[in-house]
Amino acid sequence: MSGNTTGKMFKVTTFGSSHGTALGAVIDGCPAGLELNEEDIQAELNKRRPGTSKITTPRGETDQVQILSGVFQGRTDGTPIAAVVYNRDADSSAYEALKNTPRPGHGDYTWKARYGSYDYRGGGRGSGRVTIGHVIGGAVAKKLLKTRGIEVVAHVTQIGKIKANKVNINQIASKIQENPVRCADHVAASSMEELILDLKSQGNSVGGIVETLVLNAPAGLGDPVFDKLDADIAKALMAIGAVKGVEIGAGFESAELTGYEMNDEYYVSEEGIRTTTNQAGGILGGMSNGMPIVARMAVKPTPSISRPQKTVDIEKMEDTEIEIKGRHDPCICPRVTPVAEAAVAMVVVDHLIRAGFIGPTKI
Amino acid sequence: MSGNTTGKMFKVTTFGSSHGTALGAVIDGCPAGLELNEEDIQAELNKRRPGTSKITTPRGETDQVQILSGVFQGRTDGTPIAAVVYNRDADSSAYEALKNTPRPGHGDYTWKARYGSYDYRGGGRGSGRVTIGHVIGGAVAKKLLKTRGIEVVAHVTQIGKIKANKVNINQIASKIQENPVRCADHVAASSMEELILDLKSQGNSVGGIVETLVLNAPAGLGDPVFDKLDADIAKALMAIGAVKGVEIGAGFESAELTGYEMNDEYYVSEEGIRTTTNQAGGILGGMSNGMPIVARMAVKPTPSISRPQKTVDIEKMEDTEIEIKGRHDPCICPRVTPVAEAAVAMVVVDHLIRAGFIGPTKI
Amino acid sequence: MSGNTTGKMFKVTTFGSSHGTALGAVIDGCPAGLELNEEDIQAELNKRRPGTSKITTPRGETDQVQILSGVFQGRTDGTPIAAVVYNRDADSSAYEALKNTPRPGHGDYTWKARYGSYDYRGGGRGSGRVTIGHVIGGAVAKKLLKTRGIEVVAHVTQIGKIKANKVNINQIASKIQENPVRCADHVAASSMEELILDLKSQGNSVGGIVETLVLNAPAGLGDPVFDKLDADIAKALMAIGAVKGVEIGAGFESAELTGYEMNDEYYVSEEGIRTTTNQAGGILGGMSNGMPIVARMAVKPTPSISRPQKTVDIEKMEDTEIEIKGRHDPCICPRVTPVAEAAVAMVVVDHLIRAGFIGPTKI
Amino acid sequence: MSGNTTGKMFKVTTFGSSHGTALGAVIDGCPAGLELNEEDIQAELNKRRPGTSKITTPRGETDQVQILSGVFQGRTDGTPIAAVVYNRDADSSAYEALKNTPRPGHGDYTWKARYGSYDYRGGGRGSGRVTIGHVIGGAVAKKLLKTRGIEVVAHVTQIGKIKANKVNINQIASKIQENPVRCADHVAASSMEELILDLKSQGNSVGGIVETLVLNAPAGLGDPVFDKLDADIAKALMAIGAVKGVEIGAGFESAELTGYEMNDEYYVSEEGIRTTTNQAGGILGGMSNGMPIVARMAVKPTPSISRPQKTVDIEKMEDTEIEIKGRHDPCICPRVTPVAEAAVAMVVVDHLIRAGFIGPTKI
Repeated sequence: MSGNTTGKMFKVTTFGSSHGTALGAVIDGCPAGLELNEEDIQAELNKRRPGTSKITTPRGETDQVQILSGVFQGRTDGTPIAAVVYNRDADSSAYEALKNTPRPGHGDYTWKARYGSYDYRGGGRGSGRVTIGHVIGGAVAKKLLKTRGIEVVAHVTQIGKIKANKVNINQIASKIQENPVRCADHVAASSMEELILDLKSQGNSVGGIVETLVLNAPAGLGDPVFDKLDADIAKALMAIGAVKGVEIGAGFESAELTGYEMNDEYYVSEEGIRTTTNQAGGILGGMSNGMPIVARMAVKPTPSISRPQKTVDIEKMEDTEIEIKGRHDPCICPRVTPVAEAAVAMVVVDHLIRAGFIGPTKI
Repeated sequence: MSGNTTGKMFKVTTFGSSHGTALGAVIDGCPAGLELNEEDIQAELNKRRPGTSKITTPRGETDQVQILSGVFQGRTDGTPIAAVVYNRDADSSAYEALKNTPRPGHGDYTWKARYGSYDYRGGGRGSGRVTIGHVIGGAVAKKLLKTRGIEVVAHVTQIGKIKANKVNINQIASKIQENPVRCADHVAASSMEELILDLKSQGNSVGGIVETLVLNAPAGLGDPVFDKLDADIAKALMAIGAVKGVEIGAGFESAELTGYEMNDEYYVSEEGIRTTTNQAGGILGGMSNGMPIVARMAVKPTPSISRPQKTVDIEKMEDTEIEIKGRHDPCICPRVTPVAEAAVAMVVVDHLIRAGFIGPTKI
Repeated sequence: MSGNTTGKMFKVTTFGSSHGTALGAVIDGCPAGLELNEEDIQAELNKRRPGTSKITTPRGETDQVQILSGVFQGRTDGTPIAAVVYNRDADSSAYEALKNTPRPGHGDYTWKARYGSYDYRGGGRGSGRVTIGHVIGGAVAKKLLKTRGIEVVAHVTQIGKIKANKVNINQIASKIQENPVRCADHVAASSMEELILDLKSQGNSVGGIVETLVLNAPAGLGDPVFDKLDADIAKALMAIGAVKGVEIGAGFESAELTGYEMNDEYYVSEEGIRTTTNQAGGILGGMSNGMPIVARMAVKPTPSISRPQKTVDIEKMEDTEIEIKGRHDPCICPRVTPVAEAAVAMVVVDHLIRAGFIGPTKI
Repeated sequence: MSGNTTGKMFKVTTFGSSHGTALGAVIDGCPAGLELNEEDIQAELNKRRPGTSKITTPRGETDQVQILSGVFQGRTDGTPIAAVVYNRDADSSAYEALKNTPRPGHGDYTWKARYGSYDYRGGGRGSGRVTIGHVIGGAVAKKLLKTRGIEVVAHVTQIGKIKANKVNINQIASKIQENPVRCADHVAASSMEELILDLKSQGNSVGGIVETLVLNAPAGLGDPVFDKLDADIAKALMAIGAVKGVEIGAGFESAELTGYEMNDEYYVSEEGIRTTTNQAGGILGGMSNGMPIVARMAVKPTPSISRPQKTVDIEKMEDTEIEIKGRHDPCICPRVTPVAEAAVAMVVVDHLIRAGFIGPTKI
């Protein structure tokens, strides 16, 4: 079965692979009347573009987007929005050697198990490059959110064992622009960058934690009992390559708390009903409660490392060893932040439409 | 929009609330030819039934299930399987007082925000009692899995700060039968039970961690790029009430690891291609790799505690205080294990059908 | 794959078979706040109930409905509405003989081809009795439509070669109450009744045409390019057993017309933009245009006739003959009118929600 | 809500409008291993391309297709297949005048009612040109069908009042290649062409009937009770612009028949169980029975006629008149045949996968 569409009302279908002709997305369900141009999407794509700092892969892609449909006289017209990015700098030479030897920690083997064959060039559709489709969808979603004053921000809170200090929730969006790690705590950011470069020089890699925040979402988003808001966020984040865990609010820490420590008490504020604390991370009973939505994801270290590793030859069915070449990020956390924003933005827009806060046909 | 159906091929739609007439599920997409009777479902329901030990709520429900359709001459016939459980011991008296005062940590306020009104009796459809529907769907899913030799087991690995020691993966299913906490480490289980009873006596509650394992699943389950197996498991577990985090394999620990520590190396075994370690938790690139699937979820402490808490009167829009009465579990981890099994079993069956390992029309 | 759910926003899943324990439906996506009780559904079910006149099967079913969930204090609460009808007068004795000999014109053979086995008692889930589920869903849909002043009426316009004269569109709903054929032209209705009884006495059956009208629907319903309103109506009507054709407005006659004869010209009326004629049947470009929606369906003669017919023994794979016993309608057109109303009402409600005219969460 | 995706397993999402940048489709769910190249799609597109005879619009488009993704080393690889056709000869000059005056018989007014604004150039997404997306999806579907020996053929059986004589079912595919009307009866074809040219010279247009046949489909396709094969075919055909009716087998004629005339009797043939007649059109109980599937659709006359027509000015809300200019087909039946083939081919492939005859992951 197919799995390349996300959303029920704001439906985004993505296509393309690392070394194919093009990547892109079709967005079906965007209400008519939204101002939209290629710059809106390009700005988001530039955040995940490779080659922009020392800590990212040097693959030279401009990732220029073209809108093919769905926009008329500068506004969405209710028909599907298709947008594409053509691949320009694909270099498949390093991959021929990996054809029959699945790389540890990658999806090579599972893609092969699933489909019989597999586009092994650059990870095929298992590549991080497919998140171009996510970001296209997310860019349109973010523009829609903006019309309702809702903001989505993702930032790095941990790399390896280095943890960032807490930063005021309203300053995070601007502070992460100032360093390549996209960490709002600049002292921690420096150490993180150092760590990444150190591991890169060893041909190794490192993981981290990315937190995504949704500010100003109304109460009442989410469709119990299966399509709860936290459930859909968990799915969207876990579907990003390399993510191994997702938590909302107090998350795994809540396992150690008592009810009295965990419960957020209510009070009446000028903006409406609010809670004094936010252990819930903005979601109760699977629906938003008007507080900031807080979701964190654990990102594993990039599996492409240069040290020799044991694997198997799947044709000969015997043990063997590989050394991975090619161009890779030693830590994908910084470049995955726009993808996390996109993923969460698409979920929130979908639920805003489902709940009647936007559209369904006009903004 | 509606959110009471889970699955794309094995579709389970649930209905009912804590104090309504009945709860149940309709399963559409179960292949024909599966032996099925009411006992199969009853056995699973009994695991989540209240009133079976000192650490669960004393609400006296027999939760007797009746199959209404979809089974002919002892086997499924490819038509929808409907099954119901009538409520017998609903006591709504304690809830009238809570009508306008949302309980901290519960979904009362968010349900109200969403639908305008709200069945406040016993939590309505926000109650843990709605997982009867999950368990009905899961019981049929587990029967299907059994025809392929696949097993799903959930067990408690932590309550508060008490952590269980590791137990051999093949012994867990039998060991958890032996104590009311459903923890495979019996020494830890005793301490956990004590802790729960202690907090119960204080009118407080506690959280924990439940791990769900899938044994013998084939490689190649999962639909990238959005409907990956880990993404669907994350969604299914996060949709269970009180769950605040989900992780696969090394999970959040992977944030602190290097690529070399995280990657599982391959080797050829008698059963096929396997990995020497299982940091991936059986899932790579969003698809199963033939190793045991390992998913953990963080369960928050039961929000119903007897200590007075601050809240608001949503009619008068002013601050107030409540004391919660009624019958509650001081820790829901043990009773949530069959629900976790059901949730994961439904996801795995759905993906087995999607990938062509079962059905789609006949087993 | 499963096919027992209709609708995307107003989702109705039905279950049950002719001789099983019960039949019913779960409605997920009905907005909160709609007044609803069992009488609303019972009234619609009574229209399709057997045994109410000489021209219907004598099977004695009261078809008493019970609502299991989704209604709180007399109103829908946004959670799934489950409703069931238990079978009381199932008589399976006549069917054992048909186990291996598919009845011509019935689905016996195709169900067997699909699922390997088949509940042959009374047609199993291929029975007209499964439309109880449709009517439950339709009853709720019609109540929702009523809140917007929209009415759905189905009436018989032809039985065999007897065609009814045109009746004023606003009088049809009341006129069809006055005869068992549900034909608004009472002169034609008498001839139709005679024809049906005549063919019944010969052990034969006859087909006819049922027209369904939707009055007062707003312009703009329908989701091009695949989920157009006419496309969804065509699907819903064609999915009713025995229907072999569907047409909108001028329908098949339009094949013989020129553009000038077919086009409906616009004018400005007090109610808004209207057309002078209604060849389009209220739908243009796949969306409603504010004129009455007109859909006709061709209903084939009941395949259960008592005359001996050639068939095959599917076990022995050899030619044989059967004589069908049991209790059957000689013409299903009258009893299929409430089913057509239900089918169209569900489609229209679904599109009203999709287009933002109702809900999505509250009426 | 969005409506630009068709299919549940073989999902085709289309995009683009008459005068936008490009049109295309994304196919998600095509099994891996199918040989596919641009020529396969181009051949189908050429059948619906304008400007190929005197009876079609002179708009000069080459409709060159480019595959962007989903094909690796000449075969599908299980990932989404995206394909685009850029618009080259769009001439929007004639349409500015129609901005506020909806053309009778077109979707102009309903699109405006739905989305507030509307791409009025060339009909926007309401244009027949959007069927390029259908044909792309259909081309891939037909290639899949070929691997199972299944053929889909659409031919014109009536234009205005001119009806074709019956032609042997196995000769239709080749005979329709020989005349621009795509009618297998060459005598009738000549008269039809004459009639079309005559009406064209008068600035008028004419309707007709197109029949679509599916040969060699196995028994057991279709998902009762809502997603029956005939229901899905009816939806797919009714969703094609200008279609006002759909019938299966005896269709509307069945209204006038008795059970004995309608029922197809069974016999055992060398190929398996067959029926002596095919009044059912290959579908019983909503599932295929192994006989040829026969679906006819009524196509209305092209609404774009040059004679002055009454309409309204939707800005000023007053009556007015228009004369339509631009380039139009006087009868779309011939050019709609490849679209009907595509629509039915997509439905049949979808059901073959749903029923387990193809895929789901590999051919």
